[in-house]
Amino acid sequence: MSHIAELIAVGTELLLGNIANTDAQMISQGLSELGIHVYYHTVVGDNPARLRSAVEIARRRADILITTGGLGPTCDDLTKQTLAQVFGRELVFDEPSAQRIRSYFQRLHPDRPMTENNLQQAMLPEGCTIFANDWGTAPGCAFEAEGVRVIMLPGPPRECRAMFTHRALPYLRALADGTIVSRTLKIFGMGESSVEALLRERMNAMTNPTLAPYAKEGEMELRITAKAPTEAEARDLIAPVEEELRDLLGDVIYGADVKSLEEVAFALMEAQGLTFGTAESCTGGLVAKRMTDLPGASAVLKGGVVSYTDEVKHNVLGVPQALLDQYGAVSPQVAEAMARGARRVLGCSLAVSTTGVAGPDPDDRGNPVGLVYVALAGAEFCHVQELHLGRGRAMVRSRASLHALDLVRRYLTGRPWAE
Amino acid sequence: MSHIAELIAVGTELLLGNIANTDAQMISQGLSELGIHVYYHTVVGDNPARLRSAVEIARRRADILITTGGLGPTCDDLTKQTLAQVFGRELVFDEPSAQRIRSYFQRLHPDRPMTENNLQQAMLPEGCTIFANDWGTAPGCAFEAEGVRVIMLPGPPRECRAMFTHRALPYLRALADGTIVSRTLKIFGMGESSVEALLRERMNAMTNPTLAPYAKEGEMELRITAKAPTEAEARDLIAPVEEELRDLLGDVIYGADVKSLEEVAFALMEAQGLTFGTAESCTGGLVAKRMTDLPGASAVLKGGVVSYTDEVKHNVLGVPQALLDQYGAVSPQVAEAMARGARRVLGCSLAVSTTGVAGPDPDDRGNPVGLVYVALAGAEFCHVQELHLGRGRAMVRSRASLHALDLVRRYLTGRPWAE
Repeated sequence: MSHIAELIAVGTELLLGNIANTDAQMISQGLSELGIHVYYHTVVGDNPARLRSAVEIARRRADILITTGGLGPTCDDLTKQTLAQVFGRELVFDEPSAQRIRSYFQRLHPDRPMTENNLQQAMLPEGCTIFANDWGTAPGCAFEAEGVRVIMLPGPPRECRAMFTHRALPYLRALADGTIVSRTLKIFGMGESSVEALLRERMNAMTNPTLAPYAKEGEMELRITAKAPTEAEARDLIAPVEEELRDLLGDVIYGADVKSLEEVAFALMEAQGLTFGTAESCTGGLVAKRMTDLPGASAVLKGGVVSYTDEVKHNVLGVPQALLDQYGAVSPQVAEAMARGARRVLGCSLAVSTTGVAGPDPDDRGNPVGLVYVALAGAEFCHVQELHLGRGRAMVRSRASLHALDLVRRYLTGRPWAE
Repeated sequence: MSHIAELIAVGTELLLGNIANTDAQMISQGLSELGIHVYYHTVVGDNPARLRSAVEIARRRADILITTGGLGPTCDDLTKQTLAQVFGRELVFDEPSAQRIRSYFQRLHPDRPMTENNLQQAMLPEGCTIFANDWGTAPGCAFEAEGVRVIMLPGPPRECRAMFTHRALPYLRALADGTIVSRTLKIFGMGESSVEALLRERMNAMTNPTLAPYAKEGEMELRITAKAPTEAEARDLIAPVEEELRDLLGDVIYGADVKSLEEVAFALMEAQGLTFGTAESCTGGLVAKRMTDLPGASAVLKGGVVSYTDEVKHNVLGVPQALLDQYGAVSPQVAEAMARGARRVLGCSLAVSTTGVAGPDPDDRGNPVGLVYVALAGAEFCHVQELHLGRGRAMVRSRASLHALDLVRRYLTGRPWAE
């Protein structure tokens, strides 16, 4: 049987934009893995009439309602009262929950007495499954009424995540039949609309697995999702689709179920015992920053030089003054000398360089915004690539840094250089 | 007249939990400043029937509907078609929008032809106000029908923010009576809960201006918002509140209506004709990256060294080997030698350094995650500060980079060093 869930987040702070509804994202991910469909998220304020109306709408279009927020001790916290009312349940005092609340409060604030309003959190719908909260005070709960399963979780993201993972998920898993498995192919070097044009008919015709594209600043993802009685069967459904996509798209696919291009470049270098360094002009430290986002980066990255002036290119990286004078900083010659210089100065096996015009204005030699050279130097070679990255300073910088990392990936996997 | 808005985000990726609905947060903040109430957010997938149903519900409970997402070139992008249908509008081809889309595509991808599906984005509801998109391809639009104002914005957060700020807000401002003026004080070095504890009663008592706190990774903002018949009168309401806050909070306020700490540090150095350089260990290029996010950074920044290994600290920055051996890389002595070394090697007036343990694990001398030293060196001084930045690699790195920039700000404005 196929379930449809709807998430209702309760909290005026969401409607004022003080926080984003990250609870909904986290829960949606979990439900998607269980194969439970989610058709709507609703956010409503701390207002019983509007919450009631949102619940009345949701119960007509879903058979699982999951609320987040509004379980706390203040007078704004009305979720339990409202849901109990809509589904005709009484709230009853639960002594074990009250005990937990008292002892949680005692641990957190040994120096002051608990105010009585905290015990309001121990009022729970009669006959519900209680989700004990080991990460905060308000217990969650679940009950079934009139064909709808209602699950209530606390709102603070840390508590909500723990309560969903350790309390609601096991409860929901018992409802799901079959398993959902996803595999995500990461793509760099081909735009969303091109991929889409290539795959549109194929995607529309697919039902199991499904194929969905997502654009992510400068990159994109294709997610293949299959549903089957077992995980192995789901994977068997995914494999031929992945193979077909790899045939079709070729080496713009840089990985499957990996986080980022830097993670792939890092793993390749680490596996081959190589060290890495950077010489950055237009990206201004972004390539090094991406590499050092990875825990354990020091196993590969020796360091980098941000050479934002000709002086630093010459003095620190040893780029010959004659090259700078003759060709200018934004040139293939200087890109090569920077990469080779970084290798030497930093003492690493591979070094990348970036030099270009990030904008907003053309440089003083009239090079246009978006013209960037990236280079990769090894012991016995240096490859320079010319790029035209459009406009928009942040986008030029981000894409240039990805191209630099992609040089490493292509070199170490024996792929041809991109055109 | 008081308006009620409802936000409808369209995108299956939201229901699958691939991304959080940050557009709703951003727009809600803006609406709240205009005094436009928001009672519900809805998220719905790329499904015309369900979107239609969400719109039917929303139009009964709000007089302003703002949709985000579903304006792109792919077959999933159905927002315009669906909204036009619900409100009985034809879609018509807009040639100026088509021109913009062609030229945007051309700038971004000079080397490949635009696929035809991109022009679908130039189909717009007849008689609408077109919101030209200078940050992407899909134009937004607004129209009024049957007492409801409908506004459609693209979904990608960067585009959505720009389109809301520069296109939708001016349109909405015309609906509000009177003028709303905001002033944002930026704070670094005092946590949200401390600021809140200090200001809570004051904030709750205020109605015009209002005062709202926002936490932003490692920093916070206090936004003062006043409503008055004219802008000058609104500013007159804001001034005494700002003065009071400055008295209360002191020099943790690093600017008003400025974007970032790097912008403030940059402006101070530029005004005094100073040049700048970085020597980064644990922040791995993040300080240089932040500086080079600013257009025209080269007026101040000469360059930086990412010294991720002792070898690079010694060979490139000239940190004495004896210091590294005796105190280890994470020490005030090495932080100082790095900053002084960067000044010398890069030939700049001021240099900052960072060295610390970003995690996830303590370093091999047993220094805990979150221990960071930042230093600022000038011609005749070097100030080193010891920091304990908690856990979480990204947070430690981000906060360390902000502390380094804050050293520059404090030095050049004659403020005392932070404790």
